Amino acid sequence: MSTTAQIFHLKQTPQGLPNAADFELRDIQLPEPGDNQVLVENLYMSVDPYMRGRMRFMPPGSKLFGAAVGRVLASNSPAISIGDFVLNPHSWHSHFVDDASVVTQLDPELAPLPSYLGVMGMPGLTAWGGLLITGAYQDGETLFVSAASGAVGSLVGQIAKIKGGRVIGSAGSDTKVQTLINDFGFDHAFNYRTDDPLTELKKGAPDGIDVYFENVGGPQLEAALTHMRPHGRIPICGMIAHYNDHGEATPGPRNLTETIYKFITLKGFVVSAFESKRAEFQQQMAGWIKSGDVRYEETIFEGLASAPDAFIGLFSGENKGKMLVHLAD
Amino acid sequence: MSTTAQIFHLKQTPQGLPNAADFELRDIQLPEPGDNQVLVENLYMSVDPYMRGRMRFMPPGSKLFGAAVGRVLASNSPAISIGDFVLNPHSWHSHFVDDASVVTQLDPELAPLPSYLGVMGMPGLTAWGGLLITGAYQDGETLFVSAASGAVGSLVGQIAKIKGGRVIGSAGSDTKVQTLINDFGFDHAFNYRTDDPLTELKKGAPDGIDVYFENVGGPQLEAALTHMRPHGRIPICGMIAHYNDHGEATPGPRNLTETIYKFITLKGFVVSAFESKRAEFQQQMAGWIKSGDVRYEETIFEGLASAPDAFIGLFSGENKGKMLVHLAD
Repeated sequence: MSTTAQIFHLKQTPQGLPNAADFELRDIQLPEPGDNQVLVENLYMSVDPYMRGRMRFMPPGSKLFGAAVGRVLASNSPAISIGDFVLNPHSWHSHFVDDASVVTQLDPELAPLPSYLGVMGMPGLTAWGGLLITGAYQDGETLFVSAASGAVGSLVGQIAKIKGGRVIGSAGSDTKVQTLINDFGFDHAFNYRTDDPLTELKKGAPDGIDVYFENVGGPQLEAALTHMRPHGRIPICGMIAHYNDHGEATPGPRNLTETIYKFITLKGFVVSAFESKRAEFQQQMAGWIKSGDVRYEETIFEGLASAPDAFIGLFSGENKGKMLVHLAD
Repeated sequence: MSTTAQIFHLKQTPQGLPNAADFELRDIQLPEPGDNQVLVENLYMSVDPYMRGRMRFMPPGSKLFGAAVGRVLASNSPAISIGDFVLNPHSWHSHFVDDASVVTQLDPELAPLPSYLGVMGMPGLTAWGGLLITGAYQDGETLFVSAASGAVGSLVGQIAKIKGGRVIGSAGSDTKVQTLINDFGFDHAFNYRTDDPLTELKKGAPDGIDVYFENVGGPQLEAALTHMRPHGRIPICGMIAHYNDHGEATPGPRNLTETIYKFITLKGFVVSAFESKRAEFQQQMAGWIKSGDVRYEETIFEGLASAPDAFIGLFSGENKGKMLVHLAD
């Protein structure tokens, strides 16, 4: 008796901001799991801004994918048992069959299941590795992080606070700005829609910025370059302001010459760079969650059918913290 | 018995292109050298375009200065002997008295004295350090260098050729493009005024670029980012296209998002970063000059009195390669 899965497909390549009409949910009959394969029912899935970039390269009709947490319903692998919880790369799927080697068992006692898609998972590792490895952040340095109320940004700021740093963050609403200061302990925060970034950076970091954790591009990058200290570092995690460019692209910073006399480094990265450090990261993060040093929020949409709305909502800032979809219990 | 020096002074701030009437040669009685001071007679001096910018900030009557090579006539320093050849910051002076700490001894057996103002000096160290240290260039990689026929650019390309690399260069005239290929051994070269950078990069480097040595900014940086290979590096030495910005600045590259998935690093630098490696650099460069692997050109004016003409000649392109003035033997 094979299983029918509901799977979201890319109906057409999004033009500019993604739209509900770009996505199509189809019923697909799954094969029986073969040797060393598992059948999994997904419980939570993640939607992330990076998926927008990927969609440019996916032909219409492609199955969507990404990080999810599920429960094993059937297993032909000696390493995995029915009832195990597993991290897997098949978000946007209600169920899937795949090789046991692509899933990773999770300990639901160590941290809540959805946290493995956020603070304990990819966004957490992105924040930790991007700040400490790519950004080479040193204890006590001054950090600026944009999109600071997002899943990655709020962790970046909190890790720098744990390391004794001064932290300035930007967000897209006054409410979020208050959250950064009141809930996450940022030293200064501003609303990038209404405040001038350079003025705010000078206010929040009178002596300049050592590390700018770049999530957005545009005028905030330009302001950060101007206000950067010598030997500053800019780990480039994302440039959300540029993701939905089509036709005439958003111009880049007009002041890259700032890099020369200030020896500034800009370096792009994706989370795969830190895969070998995942165990070390999870140890530290679990400790910080238990001690209360790291706090996090989740916004959870209900039901697989709401996944496109959750994804689209990322670009209008509908989420507080990690944006997730709850598929099943 | 003190020495009389001839020293060029700025008579008036140049308006537009500098003019002979802007300069005045005066006889100045030098003091006796004090403790740890030296008296030096200059033999060669450098004129450089950057001096023009500096003159805007120098009050009329100021002594001119810059890199020169001289011979020690008297020394009260235990580290420096009469007859030593020294690099010093007192170009435009026939003689000077200064602290021994501001001069650097040179080995005239290792390379010709005037080369210490060019290929063995600041432009050489800039090229060598920017490519091999900041750019982390590895043997056999594919290099693109802009302003490739300049003092720095032509060395960058030649060093990469010595290291077994593939080298693409851009310059501002068809004659210079031919020089890059015929005299400096570049694999491909193009005229950035008439050719499309991305088309030319795809032609010259079908498999992409590992290192882009950035001298100019603008459309060439954008094309390089697009055509960069994963883990590519962009040492930023200069951005000539942006230097004359006033009012509305030239926009930066619209495709900095390329850095993310390709793990690209951009890093600004100035030559002072490599000061600790100067000896290692000079050993290597001297070897390459002797073996003929590195070629360079010099244009030498005769006599201190010709220094203003040499300087003015920079702006009408009278020089081939490094522009120098010979003061004494």
